[in-house]
Amino acid sequence: MKLKYRVLTLFACIATLGLRAQTPEVYPPHWWTGMKHNTIQLLVKSADPQFGKSDVTIQYNGVTLTKVNRLENGKYLALDIAIAPEATAGNAVILFKSGKKTQKVNFPLKPRDRNRVYAQGVTAADFIYLAMPDRFSNGDPTNDKIKGMRDQSLNRDSIFHRHGGDLQGLINHLDYLQDLGITTVWLTPVLENDMPDRTEHGYAITNHYKVDPRQGGDALYKKLSDELHKRNMKLIQDAVYNHVGLYHFFVQDKPTHDWLHEWPSYTNTNYKDQPLFDIHAAKTDQQRMSDGWFTRFMPDVNQNNPYVANFLIQHALWSVEEFGVDGWRIDTYIYNNLEFMNRCNQALLDEYPNISLFGETWVHGVAGQAFFTRNTFNIPFKSNLPGLTDFQANLYGIMNAVNEPFGWTNGVNKLYQTLAADFVYEDPMKHVIFLDNHDMSRFYSVVNEDLDKHKMGLAWLLTCRGIPQMYYGTEVLMKGISNPDGWVRLDFPGGWPGDKANKFTREGRNEKENEAFEWTKKLANFRKNSSAIKTGKMMQYVPEDGVYVYFRYDDQQTVMCIMNTQDKPMEIDPKRFSERIKTFKQGREVTTDRIHNVEATLTVPQKYVLVLELK
Amino acid sequence: MKLKYRVLTLFACIATLGLRAQTPEVYPPHWWTGMKHNTIQLLVKSADPQFGKSDVTIQYNGVTLTKVNRLENGKYLALDIAIAPEATAGNAVILFKSGKKTQKVNFPLKPRDRNRVYAQGVTAADFIYLAMPDRFSNGDPTNDKIKGMRDQSLNRDSIFHRHGGDLQGLINHLDYLQDLGITTVWLTPVLENDMPDRTEHGYAITNHYKVDPRQGGDALYKKLSDELHKRNMKLIQDAVYNHVGLYHFFVQDKPTHDWLHEWPSYTNTNYKDQPLFDIHAAKTDQQRMSDGWFTRFMPDVNQNNPYVANFLIQHALWSVEEFGVDGWRIDTYIYNNLEFMNRCNQALLDEYPNISLFGETWVHGVAGQAFFTRNTFNIPFKSNLPGLTDFQANLYGIMNAVNEPFGWTNGVNKLYQTLAADFVYEDPMKHVIFLDNHDMSRFYSVVNEDLDKHKMGLAWLLTCRGIPQMYYGTEVLMKGISNPDGWVRLDFPGGWPGDKANKFTREGRNEKENEAFEWTKKLANFRKNSSAIKTGKMMQYVPEDGVYVYFRYDDQQTVMCIMNTQDKPMEIDPKRFSERIKTFKQGREVTTDRIHNVEATLTVPQKYVLVLELK
Repeated sequence: MKLKYRVLTLFACIATLGLRAQTPEVYPPHWWTGMKHNTIQLLVKSADPQFGKSDVTIQYNGVTLTKVNRLENGKYLALDIAIAPEATAGNAVILFKSGKKTQKVNFPLKPRDRNRVYAQGVTAADFIYLAMPDRFSNGDPTNDKIKGMRDQSLNRDSIFHRHGGDLQGLINHLDYLQDLGITTVWLTPVLENDMPDRTEHGYAITNHYKVDPRQGGDALYKKLSDELHKRNMKLIQDAVYNHVGLYHFFVQDKPTHDWLHEWPSYTNTNYKDQPLFDIHAAKTDQQRMSDGWFTRFMPDVNQNNPYVANFLIQHALWSVEEFGVDGWRIDTYIYNNLEFMNRCNQALLDEYPNISLFGETWVHGVAGQAFFTRNTFNIPFKSNLPGLTDFQANLYGIMNAVNEPFGWTNGVNKLYQTLAADFVYEDPMKHVIFLDNHDMSRFYSVVNEDLDKHKMGLAWLLTCRGIPQMYYGTEVLMKGISNPDGWVRLDFPGGWPGDKANKFTREGRNEKENEAFEWTKKLANFRKNSSAIKTGKMMQYVPEDGVYVYFRYDDQQTVMCIMNTQDKPMEIDPKRFSERIKTFKQGREVTTDRIHNVEATLTVPQKYVLVLELK
Repeated sequence: MKLKYRVLTLFACIATLGLRAQTPEVYPPHWWTGMKHNTIQLLVKSADPQFGKSDVTIQYNGVTLTKVNRLENGKYLALDIAIAPEATAGNAVILFKSGKKTQKVNFPLKPRDRNRVYAQGVTAADFIYLAMPDRFSNGDPTNDKIKGMRDQSLNRDSIFHRHGGDLQGLINHLDYLQDLGITTVWLTPVLENDMPDRTEHGYAITNHYKVDPRQGGDALYKKLSDELHKRNMKLIQDAVYNHVGLYHFFVQDKPTHDWLHEWPSYTNTNYKDQPLFDIHAAKTDQQRMSDGWFTRFMPDVNQNNPYVANFLIQHALWSVEEFGVDGWRIDTYIYNNLEFMNRCNQALLDEYPNISLFGETWVHGVAGQAFFTRNTFNIPFKSNLPGLTDFQANLYGIMNAVNEPFGWTNGVNKLYQTLAADFVYEDPMKHVIFLDNHDMSRFYSVVNEDLDKHKMGLAWLLTCRGIPQMYYGTEVLMKGISNPDGWVRLDFPGGWPGDKANKFTREGRNEKENEAFEWTKKLANFRKNSSAIKTGKMMQYVPEDGVYVYFRYDDQQTVMCIMNTQDKPMEIDPKRFSERIKTFKQGREVTTDRIHNVEATLTVPQKYVLVLELK
């Protein structure tokens, strides 16, 4: 009985596999004419273990099959393809001949639209909104559960189950975001995560070439991109090179034995960046860092395997071209093979000179962080990554400014100190600054729900050098301590049909929430037209008595920011700042429109940032 | 009555000045033949306000007066002198003719002894003992008070008064130091500090060309240098370029109006290094940092004044040559004009290629600290300073390791992190590491008089990369919290005739003190012959569970150090360290001679560093 059941199960599995893979699958499924990157490698997967022995031919003008790479696993082939510059769009056909059987697979060459606006780059002129689609808004309840997918957990009462949010939910609230002053949307990954659980975050990709149907699928992701661009807004894609989900097709059925970094027994990374740059490091610590798994459920891919490398690089290019991405956020940047990342970054920059790339660098120390981006170090490894998520300005900066008493190296002095080390970066204006994100305790909770401090943080975020990024809900005082992380990934109230409260509307927000919202909106919309903040320089003064004064300025405009971190109002003698105040007489407070005299003592309320446009 | 008294006082002053300055004073008072640096500038000072109008001639073969610089203050002249390579030693005579009066001043050219051993450089092969002469030992009670000097405060009961220690006291204890394993003595400045009070530290120099007579004067300083060299030991001089004492002759009577940095009202430095490298800095903050006074009693000299610059550079060269100095510690390095410091350093290195230079860098942050030494930054300002006092390895390193609970970025992880950033330095082996110094709370007090922790600190100090420096008395558990600094400058017990206890002898020390002493001695004498520590590399592993493992190694020797910062014994599986343990089977514990098996689990006692020479 038991045996019979097993045999039946086995047959059922084979049948399923057979159905799924009737036609060999091709990754990437199509390419474009007119790309600079026109020698590509197709990873082709069949259900047939003999498939790898097939004779392969391609019939299409301008498309040449330069090499057939037969991988260890007979179900796979890797085809090197050259697309001539003069090739025209159309449908290239790939023929796989095995004995008498010939399989025909289409490989479309799409025309590239030269007039399309995309890959624009996200700069300090922008304001990024980071959202988790599953938790922001459910625009289409019909896609909440998809039959056949492993995670059927739809349950808003659990922080680790799916809640049903989707891309349509995002699209539905673009007016809201635009009104708030947001210019750019960064979503946690939207690609298929066909994992048994914890699929809400999206970082366990199981198919690079498929937008998760629970998010709305490929078409809706394209629609989101189009809708953003129509509004002159931008899209950032969250890219994951380091690992994939355990149920990724190429994990379940590896093309080569060394497709993944595998260990005698489960070995996670040591999560330590130091061995990567430490001149005293042990090789084993380096290897553990780069090749250890991020979690048990996210195998570490072997980027030294050339087929893996090609797969990942092509996917990056394909994604930007396919979905019209403007900025590229690279997850767990430091865990990747850094030489591989340089290749990857270069491929994107060669194809899209204006695109912005920034990597996640959750590390401790300015020097270490700078190692991972373009820096001023003359050392053997040179990163070509243009920007990063500036964790130092957060962990050793704004956090101290708002929460730590002022001291020689504490409180706002730490923020000052951290920014004073900007000389290690090639261009700190390309770094993304933030108060929190999907992995960190929410800022409003970190400041112990002190609205004054929350507003201080927002004012800093929207005036400091770099590209500001706000996590969804910060504008309406969403709370949560990251222990565990699910608590900082709660639903945006009003994002689901029938929600009791709707924080997307003024009426749905309470007084404090509206105060935070309006404060954000005022500053965000000011900075939209502020050349000093968007492209200008920064000047910062040594903090005194808990008061930190910095300027953003260019030839057209000067913005003076006075951050008083003390629990009492402080008086500031503007004479000390005459190098920048020059002949200005007044400052318009951006958040209140109040006019202040900058030729006499300025009084700054307790726990407040006075943002003055000088006149 | 009152007026009469004043007049009398005035006469007395003039009389004193007249006596002092009968002959014009020449700085430097002599030079040498055969120096690379053979174009010098003599600052000549007379009591006569008309002196500056004198005709000047020099009569000596091979010595040419190339220019007479007449300074604003008529009492001064600055004479540019060229000494030809072929000039022979002898007495050059300088004639100052004013009307009918001619003054004759000797300017000896001394022969340079090519066989003399000095300017050797202090390296990681050394072990530096930092002592304050006034507080270490009183070898000559006859010089405790010198008539005519401003400070007559001899009083061992006050931490701010003079105690009478001197160079003879040092000389008397060279056996003690050598036995302990010390190879190098660094003294706080020994030059004249003819100030009214606080003369114990020596940083308020009033005459660069005179060793303080209370220390024993020039002859005894030379003797100390000779005695050290006879023992193959070395001498470090503590150089102060940034400021002088308020009663320095050229402060009391300035050669030019811009000899000092003067401010409308007293303005101290902001003590902030950041404006010096911050790309966002305000010029006024930079100026305040560099040109503000260190204290009210130590005017900031203007190193942009070419006469000042020449004076200071020549004094550095003169000191090394005159006293046979081997290493050069530069006080308040970051407060100097950094371009000037580069000139200064270069002049010393040109003349003495092996000399070691290290600057005091009491700053916060590895990147910032690295700015002040030879680093790997490709930035406009490049420091040529070879080494520094590695405050980061102290403040964000060993302090955390011994006193802070282990955490992701805390405890010994901070020490690991700080050393992992060594890639910013050209050569971290040239940095001086330390547990404390004359400005900081004593280590034994910082660890709350926990002998285990104290020994951990010492073991680290004597095995980590860099040049170890120990503050006098640390070996016998001297205590003191730097609030104020006088408390960390107490007398070495036994250094004064009649002292109740004598910690220079085994009998005079209690059990704990002997344990600290022997621990230090054992490690210091081991490292004297340890190529791995003196010139070898370092390998450090990511700390785990509060245990930090690092190696010092070269082709000849491997030393494994296991620092257990936990309050309980910890077991270590040596397999993780096979990259360095290789085929070694045993480790001899340097401090106890116990043999440990390094092929099996090692148990490390709580709060302990196991230093194993692998066999």
